[in-house]
Amino acid sequence: MNYRNLPMVPRVVFGNGSFDQLGDILLPQRKSSDAPMIFLVDDIFEGTQLISRIPLICNDQIIFISADEEPKTDQVDLLADRIRDHFNELPSGIVGIGGGTLLDLAKAVAIMLNNKGKSYQYQGWDLVRKPSIYHVGIPTISGTGAEVSRTTVLLGPEKKLGINSDYTTFNQVLLDPDLTKGVSKEQWFYTGMDCFIHCIESLNGTFLNAFSQSYGEKALELCKEVYLEELDPSDSRDKLMMASWHGGMSIAYSQVGVAHAMSYGLSYLLGVRHGIGNCLVFQHLEEFYPEGVAMFNIMKEKHQIALPTGICGALTENDFEIMINVALSLEPLWENALGKEWRKLISPEKLKSIYQKI
Amino acid sequence: MNYRNLPMVPRVVFGNGSFDQLGDILLPQRKSSDAPMIFLVDDIFEGTQLISRIPLICNDQIIFISADEEPKTDQVDLLADRIRDHFNELPSGIVGIGGGTLLDLAKAVAIMLNNKGKSYQYQGWDLVRKPSIYHVGIPTISGTGAEVSRTTVLLGPEKKLGINSDYTTFNQVLLDPDLTKGVSKEQWFYTGMDCFIHCIESLNGTFLNAFSQSYGEKALELCKEVYLEELDPSDSRDKLMMASWHGGMSIAYSQVGVAHAMSYGLSYLLGVRHGIGNCLVFQHLEEFYPEGVAMFNIMKEKHQIALPTGICGALTENDFEIMINVALSLEPLWENALGKEWRKLISPEKLKSIYQKI
Repeated sequence: MNYRNLPMVPRVVFGNGSFDQLGDILLPQRKSSDAPMIFLVDDIFEGTQLISRIPLICNDQIIFISADEEPKTDQVDLLADRIRDHFNELPSGIVGIGGGTLLDLAKAVAIMLNNKGKSYQYQGWDLVRKPSIYHVGIPTISGTGAEVSRTTVLLGPEKKLGINSDYTTFNQVLLDPDLTKGVSKEQWFYTGMDCFIHCIESLNGTFLNAFSQSYGEKALELCKEVYLEELDPSDSRDKLMMASWHGGMSIAYSQVGVAHAMSYGLSYLLGVRHGIGNCLVFQHLEEFYPEGVAMFNIMKEKHQIALPTGICGALTENDFEIMINVALSLEPLWENALGKEWRKLISPEKLKSIYQKI
Repeated sequence: MNYRNLPMVPRVVFGNGSFDQLGDILLPQRKSSDAPMIFLVDDIFEGTQLISRIPLICNDQIIFISADEEPKTDQVDLLADRIRDHFNELPSGIVGIGGGTLLDLAKAVAIMLNNKGKSYQYQGWDLVRKPSIYHVGIPTISGTGAEVSRTTVLLGPEKKLGINSDYTTFNQVLLDPDLTKGVSKEQWFYTGMDCFIHCIESLNGTFLNAFSQSYGEKALELCKEVYLEELDPSDSRDKLMMASWHGGMSIAYSQVGVAHAMSYGLSYLLGVRHGIGNCLVFQHLEEFYPEGVAMFNIMKEKHQIALPTGICGALTENDFEIMINVALSLEPLWENALGKEWRKLISPEKLKSIYQKI
């Protein structure tokens, strides 16, 4: 048995207002006045006060990016090319500010600035050869765990799949719960449920060990506090940010499961965003995760979240096939969920019947 | 407000039998055949099978060290001098294999091999100027949190105090719960209670934030499982190792408190080892930690642990004064326990009355 030697985020700062320490944190990482810091920022913040707090010096650049769509391999390659073309030197670092989309883009761009070829070539497990450039993750919404995970999940030409590698992990994470203040209720719910669903899948998976279990249990407990109890808003923001952090760690020696596999299919075919995609699938997974789905329904009701319906209503046979193929290609997820003999326990028809309910 | 940018252990492997991966883990860290790996190993393992599993090559060296006494600054300086004198090059790394004593020695020696002067000069907060050499922590008993903390606690000529610095943190930790198999019941209890007491002090402290709280709560929950429930022995070893890990993390944005401060006094004067010292003090701290002490007593009874008595029976006024001065010099611990006005809430007489019960 060989256990993964886990790469951890080597530096993390936590605290309300800690965003204002970013300048001091980046300073020792600056290589020269020609090697800029590139800030990839969710365009929802364009024109807001947060932008004026970004510690720009010399030729640093802010690139605003929409998070309306899932991050794509093409988009990563274009960004990396644009940065390479625009500057004489490689950047000193990439700073992602936003939700999972922006964090995953920052990770992928940092990898591609030091690795040849196209990003889709690295989708998979441990295919990256050279260290990424210095990169920092600053979440502005909680739940994805992207700030702590060793993957960056991208829509590629053939699949939605992560670049899973030791070089994917951020070099620095800044956790400032105040940055999550303006998130809409729906987005807060969908993204937080990403964490909740992670935990249910990880804790009920066959890969679980005591390391991942301890993180998953804590994240789940924090999700329950946030979504089932009446917390003070600041306390709630703090706790959801920590839930996301621990939830991401719980995947370290584990995997996600059925909901994520099927949600990847939805995203690939229809561009459904990850958080809501997980919810759309998970609500129909009572047979795999009975307690988790029951709790999800209570949370959904408490926060009066109405999930969209009829998403798969007009799909063709071919469409279903595409989604099912994407979902079934994620073998480690199925093995985690159902064990080594997973192929005997699941069928394309079964998946189709679930997709048809969505 | 400025929040600490926490150094995390950047690499960790967890799993039973993972000790056998040590050779592969160290290989990329070896600088040359003249730059050895130095293994500092608890001498309790001398002649055991574990020693034959240490991946020695070239001029690597094993140094056996007794953990009967608390680690000392003189001992650190002697070890660093001996290593410097014996080899033509600085070692590629230091690997500590043992309990808190061995782990703290490994951290301190790794610092001193790259920093001038004597180790007592670095006791305090953020006094280390240059990065330590590569160092690895492999706990063989669970509870101290030394594997994850940014401190190495040493008995110096004038005080028992940690070298708290970003360079103290291990570069790599290997968590193999099987290594804790041979620990005696008493040692298992005292060292595990170090974690339990950490958590009580951290969770009841004024420094606590959501980050430290989440780790402390999980560690406490795991301690309760291990010491109050009937777990399978393997499960129990796994969980106590994770409790120690999370318990160490809970101190990141927090501090220990009254028990640790007073236990440092006991260690300084009488050489009482840290784990048992904490227990000796903690049992008399109902007024500070009522729930924690009640739970401690239940655990103690369940495992039929008889703490020694009369430890302070024959001490002189001068002895009490020394212990009290050491304890009160640990200002951050008292501030965490009792708030900014702690000096108004505690007195030398109060401390003496507690020491007299021990």
